[in-house]
Amino acid sequence: MRIGVVGAERPVARVDDDIYVDLSDVVTDFDETFSGTGGLDRIRPVVAERAAAGQVSRLTGERIGAPIARPHQILCIGLNYRDHAAESGMAVPDEPVLFTKSPNSLVGPNDDVRIPHGSTKPDWEVELGIVIGRRTSYLGSTEEARDAIAGYVVVNDVSERAFQLERGGQWAKGKSAETFNPAGPWLATADEIDDVFALGVWLDVNGVRRQDGNTEAMIFDPYFIVHHLSQFMVLEPGDLINTGTPPGVGMGFDPPVWLKPGDVTELGIMGLGAQRQRVVGPR
Amino acid sequence: MRIGVVGAERPVARVDDDIYVDLSDVVTDFDETFSGTGGLDRIRPVVAERAAAGQVSRLTGERIGAPIARPHQILCIGLNYRDHAAESGMAVPDEPVLFTKSPNSLVGPNDDVRIPHGSTKPDWEVELGIVIGRRTSYLGSTEEARDAIAGYVVVNDVSERAFQLERGGQWAKGKSAETFNPAGPWLATADEIDDVFALGVWLDVNGVRRQDGNTEAMIFDPYFIVHHLSQFMVLEPGDLINTGTPPGVGMGFDPPVWLKPGDVTELGIMGLGAQRQRVVGPR
Repeated sequence: MRIGVVGAERPVARVDDDIYVDLSDVVTDFDETFSGTGGLDRIRPVVAERAAAGQVSRLTGERIGAPIARPHQILCIGLNYRDHAAESGMAVPDEPVLFTKSPNSLVGPNDDVRIPHGSTKPDWEVELGIVIGRRTSYLGSTEEARDAIAGYVVVNDVSERAFQLERGGQWAKGKSAETFNPAGPWLATADEIDDVFALGVWLDVNGVRRQDGNTEAMIFDPYFIVHHLSQFMVLEPGDLINTGTPPGVGMGFDPPVWLKPGDVTELGIMGLGAQRQRVVGPR
Repeated sequence: MRIGVVGAERPVARVDDDIYVDLSDVVTDFDETFSGTGGLDRIRPVVAERAAAGQVSRLTGERIGAPIARPHQILCIGLNYRDHAAESGMAVPDEPVLFTKSPNSLVGPNDDVRIPHGSTKPDWEVELGIVIGRRTSYLGSTEEARDAIAGYVVVNDVSERAFQLERGGQWAKGKSAETFNPAGPWLATADEIDDVFALGVWLDVNGVRRQDGNTEAMIFDPYFIVHHLSQFMVLEPGDLINTGTPPGVGMGFDPPVWLKPGDVTELGIMGLGAQRQRVVGPR
């Protein structure tokens, strides 16, 4: 996890719901350098030793940042759940549909989501996020792809549907606004997730369950996605890949349901924790 | 400019075709921090003083890197010259079409361009690149946009048309391969360009002139583009925006002309210098 005020988060390791081990004396940040130099392996014994010695701190409601520093890139897979493609009125893709978000859209899991100026169709998308563990290119197999994954996080791939779909054909305009990528609360390392193909995924808006899916319904699974993307670009350590959302986004209702100031979004994935955002109006 | 081997480029200021002032003792790199903290204004007197005192070095054929460090994001405008939209078989857009390239596709102006594995339609695109000078959001006017621009560079927006257009609907897959964004040789600061709306833009393949345009034929001009993008996302200092290509890309010929190993691309823009890339096969 990363804990503290915006821009000055401390790297820590979560021990359980109540306590963590502070790592700010041994890790600068959970960034590209950390992921690219075997950082996870380096801190494992430190965490074990400090936890065993009772050198722990208490989670006391301090702000939680995204569990990774701003990455080199945020890649996203569109329409990756069969039913979500249907509700979006789009065909089930033959191969992963790739789009991107601006890296500076990354915020903490409980930070406010800010509706942009001119927005008419702000929407939610709970997703499983993959964090890349090493520099990765032209992977030979999905097994190699598994080894390139550092871990997993919950993300809310906040979207502005008018900007995404009515402003020039490509999707990036509707995906990149400030605060549009809450992530966390923690990164679960790959070995901590028993079966990434069977994780419950849910999202509530104002206490009403809107998304209730499972990663087993993905069209393209995480290993397939990482293998696939590595054929088109070099993935850097710390890169974040949002793997698509299950049915139940606002765009899919008739009439559609859009976010508005005052709304509260709560979302989570089994084993990866939960987020809670207050939706606020433009600056 | 940035001069030196890959990953260890030194920041320098070009004085003329033959000489430069070394700035590596006063600037870490031409990166986001530099651009975001008034770096250009800070080095101006240093460059003037050193040049006047003859504290200069000679450009001796040492490798030239991209004139900016890897940026937070590379944004690209598609179909921004009327005739290029026509040759691509696409409608002239009502507003800028936005897509992205992976930031790690940035290389030096004379580095090899590497055709990716599985590529069948590698193509060229000479473009005017805008470098952002400060953190920028919700600009109020195109005049404000002008003030947010640090300078301009030549870029080759190398593209793999099959990956771009036949692999899932969005364009990012065909734009992000390693070496797909040669930039430089130098960044011209905004004040050094008399009229950004009247710059000759050209590209040769194997000595044959393929693109011969002028920025006056842009549908959306640089100030419009920066103003427009700032409504959808926060631009960071050092962000690179490729502003679209004039007619004459390989895809536009009948039959199409694709790049192949051994080809040489040469391209340039008036006042911004010229590039020369050797095209090589996959690793």
